[in-house]
Amino acid sequence: MTNEADRLARQIEFIIEIDRLKTVYRNSYLIPDPERKENSAEHSWHTAVMAMVLAEYAVSGVDTVRVIKMMLIHDIVEIDAGDVLIYHTKGAADREEKEKRAAERIFGLLPQDQKKEFIDLWDEFENKITPEAKFAGALDRLMPLLHNYTNKGKTWREHGIYYDQVLDKHRPIEKCSPRLWEYARSLIDKSVEMGYLKTRSAD
Amino acid sequence: MTNEADRLARQIEFIIEIDRLKTVYRNSYLIPDPERKENSAEHSWHTAVMAMVLAEYAVSGVDTVRVIKMMLIHDIVEIDAGDVLIYHTKGAADREEKEKRAAERIFGLLPQDQKKEFIDLWDEFENKITPEAKFAGALDRLMPLLHNYTNKGKTWREHGIYYDQVLDKHRPIEKCSPRLWEYARSLIDKSVEMGYLKTRSAD
Repeated sequence: MTNEADRLARQIEFIIEIDRLKTVYRNSYLIPDPERKENSAEHSWHTAVMAMVLAEYAVSGVDTVRVIKMMLIHDIVEIDAGDVLIYHTKGAADREEKEKRAAERIFGLLPQDQKKEFIDLWDEFENKITPEAKFAGALDRLMPLLHNYTNKGKTWREHGIYYDQVLDKHRPIEKCSPRLWEYARSLIDKSVEMGYLKTRSAD
Repeated sequence: MTNEADRLARQIEFIIEIDRLKTVYRNSYLIPDPERKENSAEHSWHTAVMAMVLAEYAVSGVDTVRVIKMMLIHDIVEIDAGDVLIYHTKGAADREEKEKRAAERIFGLLPQDQKKEFIDLWDEFENKITPEAKFAGALDRLMPLLHNYTNKGKTWREHGIYYDQVLDKHRPIEKCSPRLWEYARSLIDKSVEMGYLKTRSAD
């Protein structure tokens, strides 16, 4: 095989491999079909479109294109490592190791230059240091909140999640986008008001 | 409501509305789950990642970012207009009308400036005049071919699609990317060889 043919073959192998992200199910339920769990491919699409629509609310200004690309690839490691509810923190170290191996294997299907590009993007997202990564993280958290609110707290109820946990997990939105945090905060408070989300003192 | 609050409210309404694209099912079957049809949200994600990976094969050079954005929004009109198998050409005029109304309604949920941006992108994709739109169209056609080949022609068999129809529908790839066309062509020929796709003369 020529180098050029080999390059395309690797790229196609990667494209076929990531079809599997469509079978990694998350804990969110769809708004138009509340019995069906969302998968990570759909979620990646949705958050990429959110980046197109909401980038103006990033406090420090962001390179929207890099945010979109991050959203597109941020969950690909779940093909090997699975999805974990954001409120669950057990086994985090083991998970980090698993995801790193997954990134190495899956992005490693690509030609070297693209492998580097994708791993760099994914590392940037994971490390949450750049404004783009912080904002991408905010979008990743905002969507499950919208799902939970519109589905009357279904995922929170199923996993016994309380108000203080939701507040804690979503608070990082504040620093990168005070305006989106104000909105997220109002949704969380309304969820308590509507009985979708319990405070511990309500026990 | 202040203008600023109204702007965010409209953006969120759009984001919630497009969750419905996850319930629009296409005629392709997933590679890792050949019983399950792909939906248009997953497909949009997959083709956007393909744009990141394969842009180098566009003959005239393309603005990859615009291709990615096109892939992200190209099927949103299907929320109202449904998905149609690419080999089906009946009712095309009526369909065009339906999709235009869908674009007006759904992108019309957004603030005026973003509505314009999204409708312009979608129009560009539909009109297939710019190199970006042609290349986006090529990716949109390449993926079902990969699905059909890996699923042994399942969709072709179900809809009674023949070799000459497949060749016809995929030939536009040739002009915008001879390299991807060479690859697509080889997949189509292999599909005949393997018995996944029938020629009419085989009847």
